[in-house]
Amino acid sequence: MTTVASRFQGVIPPVCTPRTADGAIDVPSLENLTRHLLDGGVTGLFVNGSSGEVTHQTNDERDTVLKTIAGVNAGQVPLLVGAVEQTTNRVVEEARRMVSLGADAIVATSQYYAISNAEETGRHIRTVASAVDVPVFVYDVPVRTHFKMPTDLLLELGREGVIAGVKDSSGDDVSFRQLLIGAKDIPNFDIFTGHEVVVDGALLGGAQGVVPGLGNVDPAAYRRMYDLSVAGDWAGVAAEQDRIADVFNIVYTPKPGRLSGNAAGLGAFKTALVLMGIIKTNVMSAPMLSLDEDETAAIKVILERTGLI
Amino acid sequence: MTTVASRFQGVIPPVCTPRTADGAIDVPSLENLTRHLLDGGVTGLFVNGSSGEVTHQTNDERDTVLKTIAGVNAGQVPLLVGAVEQTTNRVVEEARRMVSLGADAIVATSQYYAISNAEETGRHIRTVASAVDVPVFVYDVPVRTHFKMPTDLLLELGREGVIAGVKDSSGDDVSFRQLLIGAKDIPNFDIFTGHEVVVDGALLGGAQGVVPGLGNVDPAAYRRMYDLSVAGDWAGVAAEQDRIADVFNIVYTPKPGRLSGNAAGLGAFKTALVLMGIIKTNVMSAPMLSLDEDETAAIKVILERTGLI
Amino acid sequence: MTTVASRFQGVIPPVCTPRTADGAIDVPSLENLTRHLLDGGVTGLFVNGSSGEVTHQTNDERDTVLKTIAGVNAGQVPLLVGAVEQTTNRVVEEARRMVSLGADAIVATSQYYAISNAEETGRHIRTVASAVDVPVFVYDVPVRTHFKMPTDLLLELGREGVIAGVKDSSGDDVSFRQLLIGAKDIPNFDIFTGHEVVVDGALLGGAQGVVPGLGNVDPAAYRRMYDLSVAGDWAGVAAEQDRIADVFNIVYTPKPGRLSGNAAGLGAFKTALVLMGIIKTNVMSAPMLSLDEDETAAIKVILERTGLI
Amino acid sequence: MTTVASRFQGVIPPVCTPRTADGAIDVPSLENLTRHLLDGGVTGLFVNGSSGEVTHQTNDERDTVLKTIAGVNAGQVPLLVGAVEQTTNRVVEEARRMVSLGADAIVATSQYYAISNAEETGRHIRTVASAVDVPVFVYDVPVRTHFKMPTDLLLELGREGVIAGVKDSSGDDVSFRQLLIGAKDIPNFDIFTGHEVVVDGALLGGAQGVVPGLGNVDPAAYRRMYDLSVAGDWAGVAAEQDRIADVFNIVYTPKPGRLSGNAAGLGAFKTALVLMGIIKTNVMSAPMLSLDEDETAAIKVILERTGLI
Repeated sequence: MTTVASRFQGVIPPVCTPRTADGAIDVPSLENLTRHLLDGGVTGLFVNGSSGEVTHQTNDERDTVLKTIAGVNAGQVPLLVGAVEQTTNRVVEEARRMVSLGADAIVATSQYYAISNAEETGRHIRTVASAVDVPVFVYDVPVRTHFKMPTDLLLELGREGVIAGVKDSSGDDVSFRQLLIGAKDIPNFDIFTGHEVVVDGALLGGAQGVVPGLGNVDPAAYRRMYDLSVAGDWAGVAAEQDRIADVFNIVYTPKPGRLSGNAAGLGAFKTALVLMGIIKTNVMSAPMLSLDEDETAAIKVILERTGLI
Repeated sequence: MTTVASRFQGVIPPVCTPRTADGAIDVPSLENLTRHLLDGGVTGLFVNGSSGEVTHQTNDERDTVLKTIAGVNAGQVPLLVGAVEQTTNRVVEEARRMVSLGADAIVATSQYYAISNAEETGRHIRTVASAVDVPVFVYDVPVRTHFKMPTDLLLELGREGVIAGVKDSSGDDVSFRQLLIGAKDIPNFDIFTGHEVVVDGALLGGAQGVVPGLGNVDPAAYRRMYDLSVAGDWAGVAAEQDRIADVFNIVYTPKPGRLSGNAAGLGAFKTALVLMGIIKTNVMSAPMLSLDEDETAAIKVILERTGLI
Repeated sequence: MTTVASRFQGVIPPVCTPRTADGAIDVPSLENLTRHLLDGGVTGLFVNGSSGEVTHQTNDERDTVLKTIAGVNAGQVPLLVGAVEQTTNRVVEEARRMVSLGADAIVATSQYYAISNAEETGRHIRTVASAVDVPVFVYDVPVRTHFKMPTDLLLELGREGVIAGVKDSSGDDVSFRQLLIGAKDIPNFDIFTGHEVVVDGALLGGAQGVVPGLGNVDPAAYRRMYDLSVAGDWAGVAAEQDRIADVFNIVYTPKPGRLSGNAAGLGAFKTALVLMGIIKTNVMSAPMLSLDEDETAAIKVILERTGLI
Repeated sequence: MTTVASRFQGVIPPVCTPRTADGAIDVPSLENLTRHLLDGGVTGLFVNGSSGEVTHQTNDERDTVLKTIAGVNAGQVPLLVGAVEQTTNRVVEEARRMVSLGADAIVATSQYYAISNAEETGRHIRTVASAVDVPVFVYDVPVRTHFKMPTDLLLELGREGVIAGVKDSSGDDVSFRQLLIGAKDIPNFDIFTGHEVVVDGALLGGAQGVVPGLGNVDPAAYRRMYDLSVAGDWAGVAAEQDRIADVFNIVYTPKPGRLSGNAAGLGAFKTALVLMGIIKTNVMSAPMLSLDEDETAAIKVILERTGLI
C-alpha cells in the first residue's frame, strides 16, 4: 500500500456492521469486511459511524465492533472511532471507553435531542477533547443532529489545536469550501468529505480525505481516485467519480416508501457486500427492514455492469 | 389528596434534576423537590424526562435519579419513567433497567439521530412495549426527535393495547385535538399535554392530564386547574391558566442569545426552585450555562408578583 | 343576524373561489356561496385568502372575486381582504387596489420567497399599514411563508395602533395563547384562529373570532359555537367542536399522495359545496387536481352522517 | 470576446438592480452595470433573478429593468429572464410579458406560498413552457421556494424537451452531481451552478455554466475560470476559485444580525459596485436596509486586497 503523508488522510470508509440472521453482530463477516477494505487500499477506517449503524447498537455491541476491527487491522491503518451520544457527559464516557479499546482518534458530533447552540457546542467539543488523549475530529451531520457546525467555530477549534479535523456530511458545499479555504494555514488539520459522489470537487478544493459509505463496496475505486488526485490528473479523477456515481445507484433500488432513508442506503451497501461474498446477510439493526429479493436483484444488475461482480 | 379516576391521569410534572456546584446529582435537593411536588397535590411523577435533563445524564446518574424519587415517593403516586435513547435496542435496555428500579410505566420517544419513518416507528414502539411488563406511553416531541408521531399510528397502537397513552409535546394543537377525538372510544388510553400554557384548552378538549415542566415550580396551580376542570368550571380553569401564564414568563428572563433553548427554560425552573428554597443550586448539566444574577433577579420579581415567594 | 360587539369579531370564513369547468372564475357560484355564508350567520368574510386560492389567481381574477363578493354582501358584514404578495412594494400595490374595490380591512402576511427577518418584517407591516386608510391585520401562516411572526412584534404593532389584529394559522398554540394574554390590554385588537378544530380552546383562551376554511361548508356550526361561547356554555362549545371535527374529516378523504396538501384540503371544501348544491364544480386552480369520484363519494358519506346533506 | 459552443453556456451573472436614493430604479446605473458585465466577458445575462431583487419589484419595475438591460445589450449575449411568481397562472402571465419585452429564455421556479408536490410541479413547468415560444430553464432554489426540484423530474422534463436546462441554487451538491450525470446524454440541456464558491467542482463535474451573484462584482474572474476549465487547466481553475472565495468575503462584512440574509448578500454586491464606481448608491428595495459606513469600509479592504479597486 502506498503511504500517504499524514496519519489521517486519504480514504477512510465508515465500516458497515454485519449482523447474523438472528440480529447479533456477525463477527466473522465483520472481520472479512475489514480485510476487504484493507485489501482495497484504504488509508484508515472509521469505526462506529452512522454507516456502521452505531446509533442502533448497544454499548456491548459497539465494543464488539471496535475490538473486532482492531483485531484484524492490527495497527495497519489508523482507527477513527465514533463516540456518538446525545450530550457531553455521555460522549465523554463513550470516548474514553473507545480509547481504552484501541481508538486512534475520536469522532464526535454536536449534541442532539438536546436543543443546543453554537456556544454550548464549542464547550461540548472542548470538554470531549480534553477528556481523551487522542485526536478528536468533529463529525458535521446536520441531517441527523439538526445542527450545522458553524465554520467559524470549526476553524477556531482547529487553530487552537482542540480538534484535528472535520468529517463533513453537511451536504453544504459552500460552507465546505469555506472551511477548506479557512483551514489552509492550520497545520495538522484534516478535512474529509462524507459524500460519495462529489469527491472529485472536494479533492480539487483541497480536502485531505474522504469517508465514503460506498467505500465499503468499492474501496479500491476511492483509492484510485485519491491517487489520481495526488498525481494531478483531474480529468481522471472526474472520470472515476462518474463511474462510482453509477455504483452509488444501488442506494436507489429500494421501492419508494418501503424503507426508511437509513435502511435503504445502508441496506444497499450490505446487500452489495452479500452479493460480493464479503458478508453473510443483509440483516439490519431493529427496527430497520432489509432489502428484499427484487431490490437485491436490482443491485446485482448494477454491480455487474460496474464490474464489481 | 383527592383521588383521581385512573392511575395515570391528572397532574404529572416532569421532575427537574438538581445538581451540586461541582456538577453531581444533588440527592437531598432532589428529595426535597419530590416532597414539594407531592405536597402540591400531583397525581403522578414523570421521571427522566426532558425537563429532568435525562439526555444530559449518564446511565449511573439516571439510576440515581429514579432511585431517589422512588424512595421519597414510596408508592404514593405512580412513576412514569423516560427511556430516552436513540434506537430500539438501546431503548429496550434502558426501559428494562428503569423497570428494575421501580418504574410504574415507561415513556418512550420515536427514534432520533437515526432517520426513520412511520412504519419503523410502529415496530420500534411495539418492540419496546413487548420488552417490559409495565404500561408504555409514547412521548411525541418532534422539536427534539424531528419526527412527528402520526395520529393514525398512535390510535392504532392504542386500540391494540400496545400503548397506554401519549404525552404530547408536539406543539401541534390540530393533531392533538384529532388524537383526543380519535381516542374517545379507546379504554384506558390517557393523553397528556406537555405544554404549560394551553392546559385549559387541552382539558376542555378531553385530555386526561398534563405534564408541565412549570409544574416543578407551582404544582398546586396545575392541581387547582385540573380540579376545576373536573368540576366543569371552565371560566375558572381559564383564569387559573392565565395566572400560570404569567409565572411561565420566567423562561423568558434569560438575555437573548446567551443560553440555548434548553438551558433557558430548564434553567429558569431551577432558578425559581432555588429562590423558593426547594433546591440548592441552579447548576445545569454540561455544557449548559446557568442563569446569572440579573436573570435570577428578574425571576424573583415574577415569583413575587405571582405570590410564589 | 345577531349583532356582535366589534366590526371584526366572530365567524369570518375565508371564502372559497369556485371555477368553471374551463378554469374561469365561476361568478354565479361565488355569488351563491356568499349568500350561503351570510345565511349561515357569519359576521365577516375573508376574501382572497389561502382558502380562496388567492395565490393561484391573476390580478384580474382577484379583482373579480372581490367585486363579486362585495356585490352580494352589499355592506351586510365587513370584508377583510388579503393582499398576498411577496414583498412590501407588491403588497402595497395589491392592498391599494383591494381597498379601491371595497375592502373594509387588509390582511397581509410577512414577506416570502425573500429571506427576511423580524426587523424587516416590522418595517414591512408598517409600510403596508401606512399605505392604506383601512385597518390592517397580520396573517401569520409560517407553513406558507416559512417565517413565524414574533409575538413581541405583533404586540408592539398592536399597541402602536399599526395593526388591528392577527389571523393566526401558525399551528403554534403556545405562542397563540401568549399573544392572547399579551393583547388583553390592547384596545380594538382582535385575534382570530385559523384552525378549524381547536376553536373551543381558542375562544376559552380569549380569541375574538375564527377564520375557518371549513366554515365554507358549515358556517352555521361555527356561529353556534361562537354564540355558545358568548353565553359561557363551554361544555356546549366543546361538544359542537367535536361534531365539527367529524365534518373536518372530509379533508382526509383524498387518496394518500395523489394530491398536494393545498389541493386536498381546499378541494374537499369545494367538493362538499358541490354535493350541497352551492357551487357547480370542484375544479381547482392550475396545476392542482380536483377530487375524483371515489373521493367525492367518501365526502358524501361524511356530509350525510353529519347532517349536512 | 471568445465565442462559446452553446447560446446558454459559460458565465451568466444575475444582474443586480441599482436604485436611486429615493428608491426608484436607477436606469443609468443599471446601464453602466450591464456594460461592466459585458466588458467582463460574460456569455449571457440573467435578468430579474433573486440577485436582481426581482421579488421586491413591482411589475412596472421589472419591465423597466429588462428594457434597460436589453437596450444596452443590443443582442450581444442572450438574456435569460426570470418569471418569478407564486403559481402557474401568474408565472404564465409574467413569462409572456417578459418575452414580449425581449427575453431570449425564461427562468421559472417551482410554485411557492402554495403547498405543492412533485406531480403538480411537473404540470406547472409544462404549462409555463407551453405558454411561451422561447426556451425555459428551471431555477431550483429551495431556500426560497421550500421545495427541492426532484432530479428525476428535471431529467424527465429535459429528455422530453420541455426545459432547456437548470439553474441550481439548491446547495445540494449530491443531487447536483446526479443531475449532471443523468443529463449527459440529453442534447441541448445546460446546467448552471448558482453557487459562487464551488464553481471549480461544478465545472469539473460537467456543468455548462455558472450564474454567480458575485459575478456582478468580478465578471472577468469567472470568465477566466471558465476559460481555464475549457482548456483543462484544473489546478488553475481551483486557484482562481480560491481567489474569488476571498472576494466573496464581502458578503460577511455586515454586522451579525443587523441585516436579513437577503440584504446582507445583495447589499454587499451593491456596495462593492458603488466603491468600484459602477453604480451610484447601495440602496436596497424596501424593507431591506443598506450596508452602513463601517460595513462599506470593510468591503473596501477586501476589494483592495483582491485588486478590484
